[in-house]
Amino acid sequence: MFMANNRIKVGLVGFGTVGTGVAKLLLEDADAIEAKTGLRIELAAVVDIDTTSPRPVKLPAGLLTDDLNKLLNDDSIQIGVELVGGTGVAKDIQLKLLKAGKNVVTANKALLADSGSELYAAARAANRCIAFEASCAGGIPIVSAIRTGLAANRIDAIYGILNGTCNYILSSMTGRDEDFPTALAQAQAKGYAEADPTLDINGADSAHKLAILAMLAFGYEIKLDDVSVEGIENISIDDVRYGREMDYVLKLLAIGQRDRAGRVALRVHPSFISPGSPLGRVDGPFNAVSILASAVGQTMYYGRGAGMMSTASAVVADIIEVAMGNSAKLFNSLQIQPRDEIEPLIDSIDNLVSRFYIRLMAKDQPGVLACHSKILGDHNISISGALQREGSGPGNTVPVVITTHPTKQKNMSDALAELSRLDNVGAEPVCIRIVDIPEDTLDD
Amino acid sequence: MFMANNRIKVGLVGFGTVGTGVAKLLLEDADAIEAKTGLRIELAAVVDIDTTSPRPVKLPAGLLTDDLNKLLNDDSIQIGVELVGGTGVAKDIQLKLLKAGKNVVTANKALLADSGSELYAAARAANRCIAFEASCAGGIPIVSAIRTGLAANRIDAIYGILNGTCNYILSSMTGRDEDFPTALAQAQAKGYAEADPTLDINGADSAHKLAILAMLAFGYEIKLDDVSVEGIENISIDDVRYGREMDYVLKLLAIGQRDRAGRVALRVHPSFISPGSPLGRVDGPFNAVSILASAVGQTMYYGRGAGMMSTASAVVADIIEVAMGNSAKLFNSLQIQPRDEIEPLIDSIDNLVSRFYIRLMAKDQPGVLACHSKILGDHNISISGALQREGSGPGNTVPVVITTHPTKQKNMSDALAELSRLDNVGAEPVCIRIVDIPEDTLDD
Repeated sequence: MFMANNRIKVGLVGFGTVGTGVAKLLLEDADAIEAKTGLRIELAAVVDIDTTSPRPVKLPAGLLTDDLNKLLNDDSIQIGVELVGGTGVAKDIQLKLLKAGKNVVTANKALLADSGSELYAAARAANRCIAFEASCAGGIPIVSAIRTGLAANRIDAIYGILNGTCNYILSSMTGRDEDFPTALAQAQAKGYAEADPTLDINGADSAHKLAILAMLAFGYEIKLDDVSVEGIENISIDDVRYGREMDYVLKLLAIGQRDRAGRVALRVHPSFISPGSPLGRVDGPFNAVSILASAVGQTMYYGRGAGMMSTASAVVADIIEVAMGNSAKLFNSLQIQPRDEIEPLIDSIDNLVSRFYIRLMAKDQPGVLACHSKILGDHNISISGALQREGSGPGNTVPVVITTHPTKQKNMSDALAELSRLDNVGAEPVCIRIVDIPEDTLDD
Repeated sequence: MFMANNRIKVGLVGFGTVGTGVAKLLLEDADAIEAKTGLRIELAAVVDIDTTSPRPVKLPAGLLTDDLNKLLNDDSIQIGVELVGGTGVAKDIQLKLLKAGKNVVTANKALLADSGSELYAAARAANRCIAFEASCAGGIPIVSAIRTGLAANRIDAIYGILNGTCNYILSSMTGRDEDFPTALAQAQAKGYAEADPTLDINGADSAHKLAILAMLAFGYEIKLDDVSVEGIENISIDDVRYGREMDYVLKLLAIGQRDRAGRVALRVHPSFISPGSPLGRVDGPFNAVSILASAVGQTMYYGRGAGMMSTASAVVADIIEVAMGNSAKLFNSLQIQPRDEIEPLIDSIDNLVSRFYIRLMAKDQPGVLACHSKILGDHNISISGALQREGSGPGNTVPVVITTHPTKQKNMSDALAELSRLDNVGAEPVCIRIVDIPEDTLDD
């Protein structure tokens, strides 16, 4: 249908940062894209409720409108790009685009994580497709890597740094010894964090992306509720420092694992990892995804996870793939097992086996470390390292830092509850998981 | 044509290491691939002149044959996989496969670098496609990343560690302070180097891969002769050590660059780079490709570049893409400008502007460093750092290590020629390029 005519008309809905970038690429690089792909992609409509604010791209006259129906009713437009964001009106827009016979390209991770199944079903019913490379890790072609590059593999695990705001903040804390508020303010000043950074720093944004990647990697319908989430908003510079002393760097990791029994564990949390590991070396606003797969072993994908032009690059890549008809084939071949099959396989975070870093503010009294060690031992937790500095914190307390051998989350939660009830512990204990990303040990 | 029938028959030609891996994946993972893609891929024939040696995969009876015609004459086989390697009989096999109406999947970088244009033309004439993801960087989906993921970008530069053998050897020299022969022997013992490692260590294998990637990235027909090549066979542990002291690690880089005027520079050579850069951290047998692109900035792709199962993973990914019909569309849309357009744009290595590391074994006499500095200055070469240790080498010489600011290759070659004619220089000077991989400074 598409290749017979090499002219493809595209309509954008949402003319914010990414929409501006997409318009820029489509207007300025149409010749280059045609030289490379043989396709003439034409921006035919841009819809936004705000038609007056200046944007750093000059649209041809008559293109910008606040009337979605203009786009919907133009049968010559084959592709609708939803860049409104959020889970409210954006869903309605995607459904309308599909119903009007448009294929949909979107960067909306929140909506796909929330209502993906409903939207995919609507697309199938309309015999159209939804392409969403731009929804995960911005300009890094990670969706395509999982869907096609690794198609011959069973994917066993995904470890992702999926939020550039968090990685920028944590890198600043680690590298420049800034505390969280300073690092966040700096990220906002540099444009790496929104004025309201909540969805980034509380881990929700990473969870949205993980839910989408896990659906592709594991082949099941995944719900946001399946992902256990902790953010970085309570991370203290003290713990970044102690971790560094013990040769760890702190990253907000999104982790999806499937074990041999088929159980799937999905979680987003601050993680101490080795600074020498490939993900440990990813600094600043960059994203990276490391994938362990059955045949190929470890592969990693690195780049900018956000920003006007990098996300726009992924959107336009999707437009090209839709225009070629490749997205439709991939979309149609996407086999997602229904949710009731996966539900009993979603592993509770209580069962997670992990190493842990804990910090207690202990009263400076004789026998305190012995007391804490005993409680950990009572819960079957074995200590792998400890650090107690001289000097004192608030209320005559000293920090006691302990790292553990692998143990169940449940054991740790119970031990922490008991520890926090002690008289000799001055504040709520801090607990951060230590993640040993498996080495690629394929010996082929 | 293909999707109407979800059964796809595949014939392999070449039953060596990678062929065995592909057979294994197709036989053992057929169900998993069908669950994921809806396609039933069936291994229908395996052709090899050696039908008796045991391989670590059990083929169904009757599949293995030494008669290529059995595969060619079986019209139910839609895809022929050429894994014979080399530029001789392999070319004949690919042409025969195309003529018999098969689509071709191949990992043969040497053949594509040598005769790609002829083969692509034959494929077009036969209305079939050639898919070659496995030819570059093994299991890393780099061909697809350039072709589709970055389709909306103008690619400005590729920096690749494309040969795992060389990277393993250089990593061992850097990390374990081994000399070249020891590191090579170790690589052979571990299976990371062939018994005859010539094509790996002399840079030819990297040049083959670079020629293919540059064709995709820059859109021109590239010949092997366009690539300036130096290998690692003459690298001395002394230079690895001095480089380390000056905070560089040594990598064999394959570099393709296009400047604003459209000039293309293609080269493979040992390169001192920053140990903190993403490529500087790629150790052991791993490959990585860093790409600078107009919209997305820097992206990097990391993984195993060779080995039975990782290369097989890329071959089977291509089989799936061909089976879906996606490869045909991509292949047909591939716009390669003819050679006469690129020829005047290929930049001579003489014009290369680079920083350099040079080591001279100088007679331990007064005024030697001044003499050398003067010669460099006479050729417009400005010194950025120098290192002269006490002690002596063979024939009362001392090593003088100098690093330079950016200068033209031509200036350096002329200066080296003059230096090597000096009485006070005891051996041929060593010269290694220092590559400052541009930082991604997009500020979006």
